[in-house]
Amino acid sequence: MTSYQLSAKEDMVETFLDAAARGDMSQVSTLLSHVPSLINQTGYSGWTALMLAARNGHFHVVEKLLSHGCDKFIVNSSSQTAYDVAKFWGHKHIANLLCQTDDGCRRVLPGSDISPQENYFSRETLDRLSGKRTDKDWLEAKQREPDTVYLIFSNLSPMLSTSQEDDGSKLCRFRYEAVKDLLQKPPTVLIFLGEGIREAPAWFAFSTDEDAADLVKRCREKNCSFPKMPNRDLLKLNEEEAGIVAQARSVLAWNGRYSFCPTCGSSTKLEDGGHKRSCLNSECRSLKGVHNTCYPRVDPVVIMLVIHPDGNQCLLGRKKVFPAGMFSCLAGFVEPGETIEDAVRREVEEESGVKVGPVQYVSCQPWPMPSNLMFGCLAVAISTDIKVDENEIEEAQWFTRQQVIDSLFRGASPAFNIPPRQTIAHQLIRHWIGINANL
Amino acid sequence: MTSYQLSAKEDMVETFLDAAARGDMSQVSTLLSHVPSLINQTGYSGWTALMLAARNGHFHVVEKLLSHGCDKFIVNSSSQTAYDVAKFWGHKHIANLLCQTDDGCRRVLPGSDISPQENYFSRETLDRLSGKRTDKDWLEAKQREPDTVYLIFSNLSPMLSTSQEDDGSKLCRFRYEAVKDLLQKPPTVLIFLGEGIREAPAWFAFSTDEDAADLVKRCREKNCSFPKMPNRDLLKLNEEEAGIVAQARSVLAWNGRYSFCPTCGSSTKLEDGGHKRSCLNSECRSLKGVHNTCYPRVDPVVIMLVIHPDGNQCLLGRKKVFPAGMFSCLAGFVEPGETIEDAVRREVEEESGVKVGPVQYVSCQPWPMPSNLMFGCLAVAISTDIKVDENEIEEAQWFTRQQVIDSLFRGASPAFNIPPRQTIAHQLIRHWIGINANL
Ligand SMILES: [Zn+2]
Ligand SMILES: [Zn+2]
Repeated sequence: MTSYQLSAKEDMVETFLDAAARGDMSQVSTLLSHVPSLINQTGYSGWTALMLAARNGHFHVVEKLLSHGCDKFIVNSSSQTAYDVAKFWGHKHIANLLCQTDDGCRRVLPGSDISPQENYFSRETLDRLSGKRTDKDWLEAKQREPDTVYLIFSNLSPMLSTSQEDDGSKLCRFRYEAVKDLLQKPPTVLIFLGEGIREAPAWFAFSTDEDAADLVKRCREKNCSFPKMPNRDLLKLNEEEAGIVAQARSVLAWNGRYSFCPTCGSSTKLEDGGHKRSCLNSECRSLKGVHNTCYPRVDPVVIMLVIHPDGNQCLLGRKKVFPAGMFSCLAGFVEPGETIEDAVRREVEEESGVKVGPVQYVSCQPWPMPSNLMFGCLAVAISTDIKVDENEIEEAQWFTRQQVIDSLFRGASPAFNIPPRQTIAHQLIRHWIGINANL
Repeated sequence: MTSYQLSAKEDMVETFLDAAARGDMSQVSTLLSHVPSLINQTGYSGWTALMLAARNGHFHVVEKLLSHGCDKFIVNSSSQTAYDVAKFWGHKHIANLLCQTDDGCRRVLPGSDISPQENYFSRETLDRLSGKRTDKDWLEAKQREPDTVYLIFSNLSPMLSTSQEDDGSKLCRFRYEAVKDLLQKPPTVLIFLGEGIREAPAWFAFSTDEDAADLVKRCREKNCSFPKMPNRDLLKLNEEEAGIVAQARSVLAWNGRYSFCPTCGSSTKLEDGGHKRSCLNSECRSLKGVHNTCYPRVDPVVIMLVIHPDGNQCLLGRKKVFPAGMFSCLAGFVEPGETIEDAVRREVEEESGVKVGPVQYVSCQPWPMPSNLMFGCLAVAISTDIKVDENEIEEAQWFTRQQVIDSLFRGASPAFNIPPRQTIAHQLIRHWIGINANL
């Protein structure tokens, strides 16, 4: 490169950075389309175009640069990322955009070609503000704020309004004025869920023993009810509401089942915005030090798609309670003192007689029935003979990739039915078809 | 390739397969060293050399073929792996060799260049035989067998014999005759751990309220005692015994803390070889259907090494209770309705103010203090300013890769001390240094 070319390039970088700093979308676009390598160039003090646009609040330029795959992990000479810059200068919407988890981070985490799979029940739309749970005054003030949202649960089901057209459901949201009488009546359990990341208000959920029909009357909308079959009815929410229900239902279920101290049998009192129960017996061991008896329980479960050693078939099983024709991934609870990988090996061998070698974690899913955390894994079989434990499952079978594809994409007469898309079993099966397609 | 060459090659494959079938080590070695590509060749009905050696019980040939990287996942025309063949023909030691989890399975699981990291407390040396837990007669017969092993726990610590020389510890193992009087005395809690995969006998553990000094007298060895600081003293076992203690301590701790029914406050009775407690109140809700109140608890915890966006520094923190100079990974409990990835993001932001983007699971570790399951993750920061929550940690700091290397490998004056190798924090840090070295 001659010194003339060098300086021409320097000029172009300067022009590009200046356009980003000024928010000149059309110039940024034009330059990028001609010289894509400009995207991550740095100028004075190591600032990139992304940092400059973030500094000056140019939302659309930031979006444009991200869509062209710019590296948002670059730091300037003060060790700041574009996110740091946006936050420092108070451009909240840009900071939010920059902290979304989406893109490659291969430079920092080699081997992570993860485009993370989002499972139903797993979206976090609330900031849980766990530090605020012990602040009673703050919580009480939040409860009375006019835009605070309340969800009503009866028998661990939230009140839903159901649409006949699209078979979807929505959470019924209440204001303080509409429920304050219920909040006073024991045995109501009130829990603080957090504050909306996008919507400002605080969110609470409570369970009550009031008559369900009376509760429904409080709602102005039609078609409101408490679903009777949570395993099916809770799968009709949108992703955001499903994430909120996952937290609320698990914590309410724990409160319902753990109202006595397991260490001494005494009654307990609710603390920390519904996230802690302390024994009322002042002599109880559970009050000395930190004990898990006082906190909600999360039960880890492994769920795994076992791949045949030929790479071309997978092992699915069915329980007696499944709908006719449905097969799914094997699954089971993780035991004390066990890794998830060993739990996969133990469960597969117990249920199907198949021996498993390597295990690979894919993604996890909260499953509030009542409080499981499902660890989805792929596993490679090292033996192929099936011998079913009939106490656990009714049948297990190897299915070919073609049979799985037919079931996923509704072939004419699929060999089996796959669980619905909201289940991690469905997503694991789809994931396997996806990685194989790239071979 | 000419037909003459083809037939020469076929001849060589036949000779190679025949040598493997006969167990002719020297011919197998010689042929492999000249023509490495023979390793996965198949003959009649799709049989590989590995299958033939497994069929005929030639252990050393199987070992040799594995050490040359043969593909043990290949199936023959009857869809059997070499493992299936070995098992069918009763060659147990070969089947064991073939089901060890070690090698690449890239053909079946692309992207899995995992050489799985083994963490302390995570080795499974017992077959838990969970199906046998409900078989009272079988369990009672096992209890009385002369080679059955008993471990004694007092205050959740196992009796250990400690060696002064190497600072190591060993579990004190007892026979039925030596402990049968203790087993009769309430409130002894006896749990069935499983059967040894290598050593035949059944394993049990029990906790007792007997005087610790009296218990120690039952041991013929010297230097026996019940450690007072499990967090430190339980880290001196070998890997196999550590795995057994992980299960035993967690289940005993659960029995100790959950002797009353959390749903109604009644007493409970022990079932399923110590792995279940059922309410004695016949009206109790917990007896209808399956309830987690009856089963041991496993608490998922995330522990994460947060990498600076520049890829060259990592975030470590210290709690007040840490030994002077020690920094470690941040960690925290997973909450209901939360994925491990979101728990990582929440905990890092709560404790250090740093925002995290992508998260990658690395490995997990059972941590029986009393019953945690630690999910070790790498995470990439998208902001860099640290603001510590002083209720949680005392200090947090970015350390450069060179500072970490100096601490890991005991440089002259390291900037900080790293936790011991038995912790997953140590292994995560080492893992990060390892993956960076390959860049
Ligand atoms: Zn108590
Ligand atoms: Zn009960």
